Amino acid sequence: MYESLSSEVLPQQIPSQSKVLVAVSGGPDSVALAHVIYRYSCENQDKNISFVITHVNHKVRREADKEAELVKNLAGEWKAGFILHEFDAKRNASACRQSFQEASREWRYARWKEDMEAWGCDLLATAHHLGDQAETVLYRLLRGSGTTGLAGIYPVKDKIIRPLLSVTKEEILEYCKVQSLPYSIDKSNLETDYYRNKIRLELIPGLESKYNQRITDALGRTAELLRWDEEYICAQTEALWPRYCLRADHTRVLLSHEAWKEPEAILSRLLRKAASQVSGETRGPAFKFVKLWMQKGKQTGWRQDLQGFKVEVVKQGLFFFNVERESKEYISGKDRIEEFRLFVKLPLALNVWNKITELKVQVGIFDFYPEEQHVLWSTELDPVQMSVQTEPLVCRTRQAGDRIYFKNLGHKAIKKVFQDKDISAGERDKILFFAFGDLVVWIPGVCRGDSLLPAGPQSSRLYLVAAEI
Amino acid sequence: MYESLSSEVLPQQIPSQSKVLVAVSGGPDSVALAHVIYRYSCENQDKNISFVITHVNHKVRREADKEAELVKNLAGEWKAGFILHEFDAKRNASACRQSFQEASREWRYARWKEDMEAWGCDLLATAHHLGDQAETVLYRLLRGSGTTGLAGIYPVKDKIIRPLLSVTKEEILEYCKVQSLPYSIDKSNLETDYYRNKIRLELIPGLESKYNQRITDALGRTAELLRWDEEYICAQTEALWPRYCLRADHTRVLLSHEAWKEPEAILSRLLRKAASQVSGETRGPAFKFVKLWMQKGKQTGWRQDLQGFKVEVVKQGLFFFNVERESKEYISGKDRIEEFRLFVKLPLALNVWNKITELKVQVGIFDFYPEEQHVLWSTELDPVQMSVQTEPLVCRTRQAGDRIYFKNLGHKAIKKVFQDKDISAGERDKILFFAFGDLVVWIPGVCRGDSLLPAGPQSSRLYLVAAEI
Repeated sequence: MYESLSSEVLPQQIPSQSKVLVAVSGGPDSVALAHVIYRYSCENQDKNISFVITHVNHKVRREADKEAELVKNLAGEWKAGFILHEFDAKRNASACRQSFQEASREWRYARWKEDMEAWGCDLLATAHHLGDQAETVLYRLLRGSGTTGLAGIYPVKDKIIRPLLSVTKEEILEYCKVQSLPYSIDKSNLETDYYRNKIRLELIPGLESKYNQRITDALGRTAELLRWDEEYICAQTEALWPRYCLRADHTRVLLSHEAWKEPEAILSRLLRKAASQVSGETRGPAFKFVKLWMQKGKQTGWRQDLQGFKVEVVKQGLFFFNVERESKEYISGKDRIEEFRLFVKLPLALNVWNKITELKVQVGIFDFYPEEQHVLWSTELDPVQMSVQTEPLVCRTRQAGDRIYFKNLGHKAIKKVFQDKDISAGERDKILFFAFGDLVVWIPGVCRGDSLLPAGPQSSRLYLVAAEI
Repeated sequence: MYESLSSEVLPQQIPSQSKVLVAVSGGPDSVALAHVIYRYSCENQDKNISFVITHVNHKVRREADKEAELVKNLAGEWKAGFILHEFDAKRNASACRQSFQEASREWRYARWKEDMEAWGCDLLATAHHLGDQAETVLYRLLRGSGTTGLAGIYPVKDKIIRPLLSVTKEEILEYCKVQSLPYSIDKSNLETDYYRNKIRLELIPGLESKYNQRITDALGRTAELLRWDEEYICAQTEALWPRYCLRADHTRVLLSHEAWKEPEAILSRLLRKAASQVSGETRGPAFKFVKLWMQKGKQTGWRQDLQGFKVEVVKQGLFFFNVERESKEYISGKDRIEEFRLFVKLPLALNVWNKITELKVQVGIFDFYPEEQHVLWSTELDPVQMSVQTEPLVCRTRQAGDRIYFKNLGHKAIKKVFQDKDISAGERDKILFFAFGDLVVWIPGVCRGDSLLPAGPQSSRLYLVAAEI
């Protein structure tokens, strides 16, 4: 094991002058990893490689303190720096409403990031091995992942290195034995994920005995081949992103219709990236949505409401926009803003911007989505219902008697809306909204009433919009 | 099932005016497929789609004749052409030394190709369904395939269409039931492949009950995503092939060192293509070889002998050449060819081409591999042993007393060599070879003796070469 690591893997992953943070749980994998790095640094003095050991005491099992002691002693023996973290995992997990597994994982990586900064480390080494890789590939295959998922764990990603990723558990245990390395037996391996445990303890051994004795090697090979492909296609996608992304910020992405000329491999990744960007969900959208967007992305007027964001085909392309994130802000001036009248019944006022220079905002009503502007908020109105309103649509701040209508609730006083949204009394006078008389239809960034909604997804509509000047 | 097929799949896969050859075994899958195509052609008269049914009677099971009758009746009912093939599978398999499964599969596709020509069909439709896809993906995963393998069965490839590839077995059975379609129950499903049966009958149901109830959907999704990626990277590789392939025919490929600048996804595929081309093995070389070539491909002098072909790093790139295929030809003129003397001990003669214009061949000895020429045959000589030869190296036809030396055999008369190779007496006088006095070292395209072989893979050598003029 050490021979191939020191001749092939470590020279690639750990350049001269590196300072490596090694995450050591005290189990055989991480103890072997730390020893390999220790040995490599000793045998290659000219490279001037140093390392620091970081340990998290999860305080869950009785042996936790003994494990911390064991790792500390090893660090002392190998003359390496030692960092100890203590984690109340259960408390943390319930606080975050995540699984124990997920919560402690996130917590560990956050601490390690801090450790790297505090100790001036260039790299973080973790002890993932070929068995972990095989488990990850199967886990993702069982969920129907594509290349992105099946590429598995990366041997090098950003500043994280996994030198043992091509080494089997058996080789690691053999190495510990030959080198007389002490380690703790991690009964649960910190895993409380029943599904993953079942893959590791049942599925892989079953496949090994019945289908392929070298199944972990095979799955490791699959991961490596797919990582090559994934890295290549991602690089190609990134290179094409600026060409097709007509506008992007954290709440809006407009993907040009031109992108639909690209092969599925590229188009699907552009769509995933667009959706992830507006949803903030790094895992990306489900396959069925990506496929739907590929099919519908050029059908003008097609739209879809999803958890946290909306998708709509506009003139230039497919538009992704996040509704929730927008609602964290609203249009507000320092003082009371005077009233704007949007005479939508007069042809002159339709499709015309009305500037509120002091707020750096322009508002207007359009019979198309004004995608060429930097739209901050938008909603849709039914032109049929508008035509029977007795009062004109205005943009203004609040007045006594203002109310908004909700389908399931009836009319509600605007004051109550502001209270519910925790908007301070001082702020309330400065917030701009749209109303017909005292019927408020929309408070951009705060809420949309249910009045004057378009009849259905395919019926005609006007776009009421606030954009950056 | 029919609704989504007739609205989405069939319009894409079967253009107007198509004549489709439908392969029908008589099992539920293929009977449903034929019925779906029949129904689609009836409901879309304007498209003018017609079809022909082809059936192979494998004569293995007792029910075989009844099945043939069933399919023939269906064809009659649906007013479709009917083709019947009879196959003595067992005899065929033993003749080809292949498995029954593989042999009958090849035989079927060969007949279908003939059927398409004879009946003027544009497309061949087969009844692969989502279960077959899932089985194929798992089968390949268990062997550690990359994107190429895990992309599974293609819904459309060349002239073959698989309209049912996204349909489950349950949907097919339900369709047969609702449409009252008669079918035979294929107990063995023509599969004698124990391994594949185990995947279908044990592994998939096990994964379904313990890991993911919709495992076939998941694996189908994986195959589709990976097919997108595979098609994209293959297209990119094909586009780059002419840039990096400095020479290619069916026995030789020279891949430029420049190709090593490409990402692994591309380089690995260029290497696979090069190896497949010279080996004639469509499955391509093993992962370990591809990885080795990626590592060693620029180390001048590195070489490797493989089953059926050799790989060698030369000045301009990595050279793949097939030894076996070359031996099917040899240098031969219409009449006796006069003698050429290659005075290799004189500096003037080294690295100089000697033309034999009447044969459109030039021969020479070089201290580098003359890759810029179209080399037809080449071998290597040890310059140390050459320097102690008393006779000069000559290129000539046979003379009485000529002999060649083999390590395990000793000296052998050239006449005997020609006899063993079935070269006619008339031809023997015309064949050109290289000799020091009466010691023949090499008869290009016939055999290489073991005299004057370079000492080892890294020792110095001269290249004795015959190239096209």
